[in-house]
Amino acid sequence: MSKDIAARIAVSELEDFMRRVLLRCDTDEASAEAVTQALVTASRMGTDSHGLRLLPHYVQAVQGGRINGRPNPTFTQRLAATGYLDADDGFGHLAGYQAVEHAIELAETAGIGAVAVGNSSHFGAAGCYALAAARRGYIGLSLCNADALVSLHQGQSPFHGTNPIAFAAPVPDSQPYLLDMATSSIPWNRVKQYRAINRTLPANVVVDAQGELTTDPHMAASLLPLGGADFGFKGAGLAGMVEVLSATLTGMIHGFRMLPMTGEDMSTPRGVGHFFLVMHPGAFSDRQTYERAILAYLEDLRAQPALEGKQVMAPGDREWQCQAQRDAEGIPLDSANLAAYRQLAETLGLAPPVLA
Amino acid sequence: MSKDIAARIAVSELEDFMRRVLLRCDTDEASAEAVTQALVTASRMGTDSHGLRLLPHYVQAVQGGRINGRPNPTFTQRLAATGYLDADDGFGHLAGYQAVEHAIELAETAGIGAVAVGNSSHFGAAGCYALAAARRGYIGLSLCNADALVSLHQGQSPFHGTNPIAFAAPVPDSQPYLLDMATSSIPWNRVKQYRAINRTLPANVVVDAQGELTTDPHMAASLLPLGGADFGFKGAGLAGMVEVLSATLTGMIHGFRMLPMTGEDMSTPRGVGHFFLVMHPGAFSDRQTYERAILAYLEDLRAQPALEGKQVMAPGDREWQCQAQRDAEGIPLDSANLAAYRQLAETLGLAPPVLA
Repeated sequence: MSKDIAARIAVSELEDFMRRVLLRCDTDEASAEAVTQALVTASRMGTDSHGLRLLPHYVQAVQGGRINGRPNPTFTQRLAATGYLDADDGFGHLAGYQAVEHAIELAETAGIGAVAVGNSSHFGAAGCYALAAARRGYIGLSLCNADALVSLHQGQSPFHGTNPIAFAAPVPDSQPYLLDMATSSIPWNRVKQYRAINRTLPANVVVDAQGELTTDPHMAASLLPLGGADFGFKGAGLAGMVEVLSATLTGMIHGFRMLPMTGEDMSTPRGVGHFFLVMHPGAFSDRQTYERAILAYLEDLRAQPALEGKQVMAPGDREWQCQAQRDAEGIPLDSANLAAYRQLAETLGLAPPVLA
Repeated sequence: MSKDIAARIAVSELEDFMRRVLLRCDTDEASAEAVTQALVTASRMGTDSHGLRLLPHYVQAVQGGRINGRPNPTFTQRLAATGYLDADDGFGHLAGYQAVEHAIELAETAGIGAVAVGNSSHFGAAGCYALAAARRGYIGLSLCNADALVSLHQGQSPFHGTNPIAFAAPVPDSQPYLLDMATSSIPWNRVKQYRAINRTLPANVVVDAQGELTTDPHMAASLLPLGGADFGFKGAGLAGMVEVLSATLTGMIHGFRMLPMTGEDMSTPRGVGHFFLVMHPGAFSDRQTYERAILAYLEDLRAQPALEGKQVMAPGDREWQCQAQRDAEGIPLDSANLAAYRQLAETLGLAPPVLA
């Protein structure tokens, strides 16, 4: 959203700085690596809400004790194609990447593998884990619950989290198909950004404290589910599906009962749940059949006529364009990010990140 | 939508009439039973677009040869938890119920089971098959592709079908959680209904032949994906996920290449694809844990404050209310349904349905 670019940083330098910060906060190497990988993946793709800007937040959470920087996650295979990963209150990013690895192992023999994760924490962008499966040649689905920010259909106040759905499918000789979406109309960050610049929100995406539609970001008290006031039963139903799979399968609390991500309490673990599904594309017919069909589908999709001045894209196309650009130019930091990163370096007694 | 109730019919009488009609059209018993079960399930729940009104259409399709009324579906288990069902151009309803049974068998030992279906046809309401899993105590997901009626985000013209997502989860001593939604903003039937009564459509749900927003149902040339003009990348991305799982896994054509459901050609099979996923709720922790958690979730959900004059409901609640009412009062037929049913009876030389 913000066009305020205060500096740029090369991918490798950003990775290096993140690792140094996390290790200095007594995070173990696997955790530091997972968080770094997830944040840099998001920042490279342009998913700025879930990219480098989250590092200071995670530092707070791990220093406060909310997140366990040295967890002992335990995986229990339950049946031939299912398992449970107890994340031991560690970083959701570590749990996410590990769960996908376990799911791939299950899918290797069963064709499909599903892993539910409990006692976890914020995992960044849901797309990272679906993408991790696709990079290994598998179809991946990644779901996560979150604290209450989104109204139910015809509800007055927040109940569900933004409960994202991410889906990735491998495409031969090309970047994967990648959908990564919140089941809310818009992210809460957008409300905060619009507040900061006094900009009017689009119609039909937020409600005030009485549950009435508003476009005033200062009046916004709850996000509407995807579909808005008229069709929000769809977004709310999808959020519920995410909640059921992320939380109820392993007895985690649901989002409405969860401590807020951005709340004062940085010492109590939040008990976030995730759900990951991985499928072998050849597990229903054969891989060649799948590969021919997805190429044919995407070829037709990208050839569709677009509105004037617009472009029809497959999910992920915009992200891969951004990634190529940022890999070449460096990843932008706005002035708030830059100040926060300099502050982190100073507080932790580290050399500041080298800017591009 | 229509409040025109010309008659009511008892559930058992509707089932009986449907069976007689289908058997008279040289459909085998299993197919007649599956179609009847699916249509009556939808009509009881109030999903009128996918209920009894479809019977005359299916008669046309099976008499024309598009649908094979005596198919030999073949199931091939591929790996421990995956399989492929070739529907032999039979009724999608038969394929749907059979695929869910196979998926349940796989989930019985693997915890999860996924079945992709190819060479199938329209299967009615996607919810029927997710529900069939939930009735057996399993979590069910049901997806299906369809012919092009829905624009891509920033696209000018129809590309995806209404590609539904249905998800059902069992709830102890209660009706299941049931989400059954198209990934379009609205169904195409609503456009037709609004045309018939010259009613203005809601904003941001359809576009004209140039891809521009309109609320005039007579100008509507394409549905927008869920999310409308601003956020339709979400609906389009979900539709694409449905397409990838329903079509590409088994090499079926995607919706853009599919013969239209309501087209002139009633002799050529359409090659519809479905995808079903079934999970044992105890496959990640144990069933008791799941049951406690889903009850706690739904209790909190239904206790949320609603907008004035509105009600907060869990997905499915509205359907179960409607079902109870229709089981008691009979299922309504509007004047068009009634005329079509009388016509069917006459054409096929059958006794007309007995009305309540």
